[in-house]
Amino acid sequence: MKPVPLDAIRPEVGELAPDIGSRPDVPIYLDWNESRWPLPERVLSAMADAVAGTDARPYPDRGYPAVREAIAALADWTPDGVAFGNGGDDMLELIALATTGAGRRALYPSPGFSMYPWAVRLAGGEPSAVSLGDDLAYDVPAFLRRIESEQPSLIFITNPHNPTGQLLPLGALREVAAAAPGFVLVDEAYHEFSGQTARPLLDEFGNVIVLRTFSKAMAMAGARLGYLLGAPEAIFNIRRAQPPFPVGVYTCRAASAVMRQRDALLEMTVKITAERESLAARLAAVSGVSVWPSHTNFLLFRTPMESTVLARRLLDRGVALRDFSRHPLLQGTLRVTVGTPEENVIFLDALADSLSSAVEDSELQVAGMPESPVA
Amino acid sequence: MKPVPLDAIRPEVGELAPDIGSRPDVPIYLDWNESRWPLPERVLSAMADAVAGTDARPYPDRGYPAVREAIAALADWTPDGVAFGNGGDDMLELIALATTGAGRRALYPSPGFSMYPWAVRLAGGEPSAVSLGDDLAYDVPAFLRRIESEQPSLIFITNPHNPTGQLLPLGALREVAAAAPGFVLVDEAYHEFSGQTARPLLDEFGNVIVLRTFSKAMAMAGARLGYLLGAPEAIFNIRRAQPPFPVGVYTCRAASAVMRQRDALLEMTVKITAERESLAARLAAVSGVSVWPSHTNFLLFRTPMESTVLARRLLDRGVALRDFSRHPLLQGTLRVTVGTPEENVIFLDALADSLSSAVEDSELQVAGMPESPVA
Repeated sequence: MKPVPLDAIRPEVGELAPDIGSRPDVPIYLDWNESRWPLPERVLSAMADAVAGTDARPYPDRGYPAVREAIAALADWTPDGVAFGNGGDDMLELIALATTGAGRRALYPSPGFSMYPWAVRLAGGEPSAVSLGDDLAYDVPAFLRRIESEQPSLIFITNPHNPTGQLLPLGALREVAAAAPGFVLVDEAYHEFSGQTARPLLDEFGNVIVLRTFSKAMAMAGARLGYLLGAPEAIFNIRRAQPPFPVGVYTCRAASAVMRQRDALLEMTVKITAERESLAARLAAVSGVSVWPSHTNFLLFRTPMESTVLARRLLDRGVALRDFSRHPLLQGTLRVTVGTPEENVIFLDALADSLSSAVEDSELQVAGMPESPVA
Repeated sequence: MKPVPLDAIRPEVGELAPDIGSRPDVPIYLDWNESRWPLPERVLSAMADAVAGTDARPYPDRGYPAVREAIAALADWTPDGVAFGNGGDDMLELIALATTGAGRRALYPSPGFSMYPWAVRLAGGEPSAVSLGDDLAYDVPAFLRRIESEQPSLIFITNPHNPTGQLLPLGALREVAAAAPGFVLVDEAYHEFSGQTARPLLDEFGNVIVLRTFSKAMAMAGARLGYLLGAPEAIFNIRRAQPPFPVGVYTCRAASAVMRQRDALLEMTVKITAERESLAARLAAVSGVSVWPSHTNFLLFRTPMESTVLARRLLDRGVALRDFSRHPLLQGTLRVTVGTPEENVIFLDALADSLSSAVEDSELQVAGMPESPVA
């Protein structure tokens, strides 16, 4: 048999990690910031009605005018300033392909979303990490210095940030956008939980692109829909790098229904936000635990226990969390999605159990613990 | 307002044509080779049942094990030798990103599918056209010479070919695969209509990748699902260039249902194939028209009339066809999808009308007509 020609795989691609593992099989998933809250009946029936009887035989309408206009109306922006595709990840790949490539740099926050450097490497560009401050807030002066010295064609900002939950005010975004020689991608995956959006910056900056997703507050992670908002001239050029039919009709129809039911989704968002505050307070009351303030549907917290061990203990108790503690700034931390009230009670019990059994087993981390956050 | 930083758009992307036009509004679409035949009731109800009650809140299963196994079973291949994504176009982008890039060449047939050079340019590679022969068949010796001189990391072969409908025997594919230093992508978008597949080559060649789609015989162009079959080591590396959740759950569920109903779809394919032969005979009987033999769900034919004018006349009569006549080898030709029997009658009438009115208006092409095909 003729062998696989491995040297025909692009060198930069050969270094990317394929993400093909499976998810652990547990009752409670608080690891990927999905919305697991039950959807109101009227939303469920609107989605079911929308996909029932779908004729999947023809290609979708080129340009997807109905979905484009619905997204534009929702964002109070112009339809020709909208691009969309198969979830936020696909949009990150698209913007990286459109604006980076060989010899071009892209700044991204670290710790932060792993798909930013992935997408830039895929495009053949050079991802360049800008560390958050010791308090895990964005270090805006550091971004401004690196913009000056590296002249990036693209800058990724997550706002509110993941995995810290912190919110950068619009004034700071304006400083970054004003200094940037290329595009600034403001990833607003969690914006509905923060009450803030960079949408007003689109009226001031032709280099700002806002990324949003239907995967979080819109409760449609499985359907895969993400979108970019930007100046029509920018979006026109970015769409050159996109195949003509980027989203399936089922997803389009379900998303159209969800957009018509947006008030119900936003009511749910208000409830999840209130539950987040309640969970943060209860989490902070657990002995040894400190919690960062959050503007999202998740919380980052620190315990005296080694994160990987704690995550494993919680998994044994049926609760999946996300462990980013390989990053030096995140030692001792875990990220927990705000679950339903019932799930959060189970999580808190499992956490208290795991930490107290760790005290007995002397598994607490003592040396090298970074400083805990305020909240 | 700060202007759009157009110099931050990658130069190669800035030269791609964004495909954002809309489709003409006509009663009969014979332009994109979709299946417009009515689906059997049991297929429709299986699809409807599959998408009803979909819980779109969580991300899809990482690795999509159920869909992967169903595709593997259908193709008689191993699940870890399967990659899939948002339609065939997405798979072309994926293979180009994984195997081409700066300084790498990819051979593609011309005339042929426009997404091949698009994907290679997007990846920063160098697409290199290999002309079909004067008879519009693949010129295999030309491919072998160009492989020798250009050492491409990727070769695109469409089989059966689009837009000619011609079929390359497996022996010729073996010659190309044996000579190729990199990967050979055999695009089998229309394979169900030909009764031939390159699947046996996967047992012999680690450098052959087969691309298939649910958009044609599987009658799901709107849902967007395409897949690659290849050696597990090749697929593992290609999947490094793919985000973790490439397809939405609605599409997965509908596709799973269609795969369970595959016998019904293949029965339809037999009917469409018979209708193709009937349409070819009736088309060839129209005065001045010659037709290429086809192994697909479309026919390429040549008339004495200028293609663009004829396509416009047909559009005025409510029938959309595809005009590739800007390519020198395709002067005077149009491509027509095999429609339903009713649609084909309307098309033939419209064609006869258009041609006879052209005779009256003296619009027939006389100078520079390339030789007509045999059938």
